[in-house]
Amino acid sequence: MINAMLVDDETMALEQLRYVLEQYREIKVQAQFTDPLAALQALAGNLKPDVAFLDIEMPAINGFLVAEEMLKVASMKAEIAELNVRFLRSNADNLPFEGESFDYVLAMGDLLSYVKDSTKVLKEACRVLKKDGVLIATVDNAWAFLQDFLSRGEYSMAKALIEGGEVPIGDSSLSRKVFVTRPFFPGEVEFRLSESGFDLIDTASVVAFYPYDERALASRISAAADWEYKYCRNRETFARSEHLFFCGRKR
Amino acid sequence: MINAMLVDDETMALEQLRYVLEQYREIKVQAQFTDPLAALQALAGNLKPDVAFLDIEMPAINGFLVAEEMLKVASMKAEIAELNVRFLRSNADNLPFEGESFDYVLAMGDLLSYVKDSTKVLKEACRVLKKDGVLIATVDNAWAFLQDFLSRGEYSMAKALIEGGEVPIGDSSLSRKVFVTRPFFPGEVEFRLSESGFDLIDTASVVAFYPYDERALASRISAAADWEYKYCRNRETFARSEHLFFCGRKR
Repeated sequence: MINAMLVDDETMALEQLRYVLEQYREIKVQAQFTDPLAALQALAGNLKPDVAFLDIEMPAINGFLVAEEMLKVASMKAEIAELNVRFLRSNADNLPFEGESFDYVLAMGDLLSYVKDSTKVLKEACRVLKKDGVLIATVDNAWAFLQDFLSRGEYSMAKALIEGGEVPIGDSSLSRKVFVTRPFFPGEVEFRLSESGFDLIDTASVVAFYPYDERALASRISAAADWEYKYCRNRETFARSEHLFFCGRKR
Repeated sequence: MINAMLVDDETMALEQLRYVLEQYREIKVQAQFTDPLAALQALAGNLKPDVAFLDIEMPAINGFLVAEEMLKVASMKAEIAELNVRFLRSNADNLPFEGESFDYVLAMGDLLSYVKDSTKVLKEACRVLKKDGVLIATVDNAWAFLQDFLSRGEYSMAKALIEGGEVPIGDSSLSRKVFVTRPFFPGEVEFRLSESGFDLIDTASVVAFYPYDERALASRISAAADWEYKYCRNRETFARSEHLFFCGRKR
């Protein structure tokens, strides 16, 4: 069982997230907060969730502060489980490590779509990798956004997207907050990797058969995963998956 | 202005079709009938629509009988417009023409997905074409069905589809009638053409950015068409378009 904590000052967004998570019997929503200070207090007390879903922009404090507390919880849990893991927080474009330190760098969670300068981040990942070291990452897929914009007749947004700009993301019926993302087309991934010192070694759709009915997905998640795995490397599924997975080897 | 006639014994299906068509200012729904006999009488009288949307399976008579009457209307309109066009009805697997008669054969409307034996129909099209003659066709796209089945968690349907079987089509909330289709994957199109005497010369998505919001589509149909045209030959859009367009040249 995975114990989850949810923190969001917008009740609608919080309830929607809870609804989606509750479809999965592997996940238990242990606590939810609209006040991030209350979340901090609970973490300082007995609440030790396995995972926290944190809104970034909130009144009084932001989600990053709660994330700091979660790193302490994670360190404590690793210690109990006798795992040799260090948790650090730093900037992705300026890592506190010497060059050629690692075999692998993970940049999951579509990090490269949300940082200010993804080229700088890619080059920093390359710097800390040993030769032949591997970067594993996901980004938002520009095809999925193009599909959404065109099917709704939002042609100026589609134009902004293919001209390589940032586009807003999120469901305006649930939240008044606006985030921007910089999605990538599959061909762009290869080019960007190459100019940052990597050779592309794999690309896949994540997820290929989006959008899913959440109830249907939750009730047979392993069957869904089998089908996804079967088709995710098929170039034709790159057209509209929400995200693109890729990995590259340092030259 | 395109004058349309709608015939369907199921009121819900009729109203849904009318709703969709009414979004397009180029189309006027001139008449609608739940009784096909009334539609026949109107055609024998003054009603001369440009296009008829006919349900096939109806009480008393089927849609093909009304289609016969529409061929007469079409012949009349062609004569008035001084167009040299002959309208014939025949079976697609046994055409009333000698071999090597035509430069082009059109099999639009996803005909090859709905006939009993598509190989027989392809070979018959090949027979009546001159050497280097061109077949232009559309079929239902198996990717779109795979997407629908998997996103709804219908794994046995997905399995039936990839094993090359027929699958039901239609919206059960609008109609109790069941039709079956035999959708094709893009690679399959090339193989089937080849075994019937054709070389594939082009493939495209129809439509690439499905599903559209009907209102948004209708209000800016030419902008939508420009975007579709721009991307429809991109292999990545073959993943989920409703239909596949293709043409092949007789070897």
